[in-house]
Amino acid sequence: MERIFTKDLKNKIGEKVLLKGHLHKVRDLGGLCFGVLRDKDGIVQITTEDKNSVLLKLKRESVIEVTGEVKICEKAPNGIEVYLDSATCLVEVKEDLPFEIDKPEINANLDTVLNFRSISLRNLRNRSIFKIQAVLLKAFRDYFVKNDFVEINTSKLSGHATEGGTTVFKVEYFDRFAYLAQSPQFYKQMMVGVFERVFETNFVYRAEEHNTSRHLNEYMSLDVEMGYIQSATDIMKLEEGFLKHAIEMLKNECTEDFERLKIDFAIIPDSGIPIIRFDEAQKILDEKYGQHCYGDPDFEPEHEKLLGKYAKEELGSDFIFISNYPTVKRPMYTMIDPDNKEFTFGFDLLFKGLEITSGAQREHRYEELVNNMKNKGLNPDDFEDYLNQFKYGLPPHGGFAIGLERLTAQLLNISNVRETTLLPRDLDRLTP
Amino acid sequence: MERIFTKDLKNKIGEKVLLKGHLHKVRDLGGLCFGVLRDKDGIVQITTEDKNSVLLKLKRESVIEVTGEVKICEKAPNGIEVYLDSATCLVEVKEDLPFEIDKPEINANLDTVLNFRSISLRNLRNRSIFKIQAVLLKAFRDYFVKNDFVEINTSKLSGHATEGGTTVFKVEYFDRFAYLAQSPQFYKQMMVGVFERVFETNFVYRAEEHNTSRHLNEYMSLDVEMGYIQSATDIMKLEEGFLKHAIEMLKNECTEDFERLKIDFAIIPDSGIPIIRFDEAQKILDEKYGQHCYGDPDFEPEHEKLLGKYAKEELGSDFIFISNYPTVKRPMYTMIDPDNKEFTFGFDLLFKGLEITSGAQREHRYEELVNNMKNKGLNPDDFEDYLNQFKYGLPPHGGFAIGLERLTAQLLNISNVRETTLLPRDLDRLTP
Repeated sequence: MERIFTKDLKNKIGEKVLLKGHLHKVRDLGGLCFGVLRDKDGIVQITTEDKNSVLLKLKRESVIEVTGEVKICEKAPNGIEVYLDSATCLVEVKEDLPFEIDKPEINANLDTVLNFRSISLRNLRNRSIFKIQAVLLKAFRDYFVKNDFVEINTSKLSGHATEGGTTVFKVEYFDRFAYLAQSPQFYKQMMVGVFERVFETNFVYRAEEHNTSRHLNEYMSLDVEMGYIQSATDIMKLEEGFLKHAIEMLKNECTEDFERLKIDFAIIPDSGIPIIRFDEAQKILDEKYGQHCYGDPDFEPEHEKLLGKYAKEELGSDFIFISNYPTVKRPMYTMIDPDNKEFTFGFDLLFKGLEITSGAQREHRYEELVNNMKNKGLNPDDFEDYLNQFKYGLPPHGGFAIGLERLTAQLLNISNVRETTLLPRDLDRLTP
Repeated sequence: MERIFTKDLKNKIGEKVLLKGHLHKVRDLGGLCFGVLRDKDGIVQITTEDKNSVLLKLKRESVIEVTGEVKICEKAPNGIEVYLDSATCLVEVKEDLPFEIDKPEINANLDTVLNFRSISLRNLRNRSIFKIQAVLLKAFRDYFVKNDFVEINTSKLSGHATEGGTTVFKVEYFDRFAYLAQSPQFYKQMMVGVFERVFETNFVYRAEEHNTSRHLNEYMSLDVEMGYIQSATDIMKLEEGFLKHAIEMLKNECTEDFERLKIDFAIIPDSGIPIIRFDEAQKILDEKYGQHCYGDPDFEPEHEKLLGKYAKEELGSDFIFISNYPTVKRPMYTMIDPDNKEFTFGFDLLFKGLEITSGAQREHRYEELVNNMKNKGLNPDDFEDYLNQFKYGLPPHGGFAIGLERLTAQLLNISNVRETTLLPRDLDRLTP
């Protein structure tokens, strides 16, 4: 008999089937034994009256093979059970699990959950988080491929500590040092001269010395860069297009996972994601929430939360773009507004009150870029490779980056980004 | 007028259009000036009789905007020209290029080509290499998603130098050391217990201290791991399925790029990729090519080339699987043949005589795995995290990994893998 999967059982009522999977759960009710088998797609109740069934002798997570008849059973999960003809153990488990994984949530602290990642991920809720994350990543790539972007993979090892000094990891590279990339920023701009439109999905590294619920030292950065734009608005519209596409794809492919997590899909109003200028946002924070932050170069996390609340309650959107950030807080490669040099064409995207994206129109003119560097106290000679490409013509361009783990966390109302990271790395954690 | 792209010109004969791109080339024939504009899709001839045209004043690679009428012109590339109404310079280039990029091949040595990567990639042949690579990567992900595999992204920073001692890069990680992942091997096996079928496409790192035409210190590893297999043959069939799918997709999406590179598509015979055992392969090398290598634990590059020749000439295949490698040369996680413990269920895939894949059925039984470690002189205590997951039940499983840059190189008959790497990293190169 050929193996079938739990997702296909609904079309096999009354038939004999062969299933393989982990023994997710087992309950002995005297004359009746209910087990639950878990495979790649889901779970199914397996029922037997055999008092000598091997099921009763096995520890949870043992790998089993069962045959039996598919029956309708209203009390079983999904309304289906397999009434057993035979059960065989393929791989026996001899130890008890460190915690129970068959409940909706694991009853253990986050550290324990992360220490036993190979076990905790078998919990259905946790599995759903990463199925959703895989679909998000696919949605990202599909959207940009459909829009003629070319995927690139740029090196994460560099001879220079390119963008910032202190938050970069140092690698012993034969007889010298290399540095782990903080972002593919310089390279994706370079590739605008080649393909005009590029995207990249790879790990990046930040040696930030603080453990917070929203920072990781290694995360998946979804990067986009596009040439021949008119303004930063083109880039914001592009990101909006991706987010709409992603939400549609999640609705089609992850309904069951969202139901399991009891989460509603994020909302983008028909009029699109609202865009407000940085200085307008400061005014809203003052007039509506009594937060005086005029003159501040950036928002505090509390301000971002309030702006998220404003977007939701006043504008009906889970997302809000804040545009025209102050020059003093944006990197030298951001284009400065020629009409008001205190502000740039850089923006952030807040999702439920948390920044998940930074983006901008970039400075593509060689002389202006050199000026920007000097004004920031940087030495253009330290950026020779980067600057060279501007000598050979780059069109007006811009782009953005999304942190995949943060996007997943906000989408699923999960407060700690470690829960949406398969193997998180922070100040204290380098294993498993 | 809205910008259109060169690929859409064939449907616009007789119409006025607006194009943007780089000035790829320009030729002044006295009364007539022929330029070539390059955009994300291709090139087009732009023609003017205006002796004062801005085209004649610009250096190559300047970014321009032109309007004009689309005309049929047999002598022009693709049989089309745009007869200019206007030309404007958007971004002026003031320096000459380090080498010409408008010829089929760049006339400079590989080091210079790599030093000026932002320029050399603008050459149409080089651009085609990386368009093909992007499609290969998409084909890989599409094939495995279609077959119910879930994408994972596992950390590249580890607290242990997991698999091998000497060829691992060391990272200064706050007050201790981390190590860059040489492969996601342990993690993808762990994820078989979660999703049964997983794949990953990420950079991995090898601190190999030799510069050869086929080694890189950082490369994209296409990884697959699958549970509930019957034998290593299931894994070889899976890889064959991917390769067939990839070749089909390249035929559909990259015809023009293959024509530009003058390369035929790789051939897999209708009967599938041939599989021969390691010891059979040694016999073929002896009897057919006079190469005595009985008793050797692995093949020399010369032997692999001859086996590739054998596959092509005798079996009509560009690929050949060599199965059942000797135990002494395969890692401890490879399942050993119980009927002949000198050999494993590990295999390699040779493509045109070069290894592009290692794969295997893995050892999934805790006790056997501990034995394998001891027999290889390894201390099981050093593998605690890895071993733990086997205590909680992993089904029989196997997988493989393909190096993306090598696959691209062999597909395109390119002898140095640096040419198929956007930003190669080797003993001497950490820039640009």
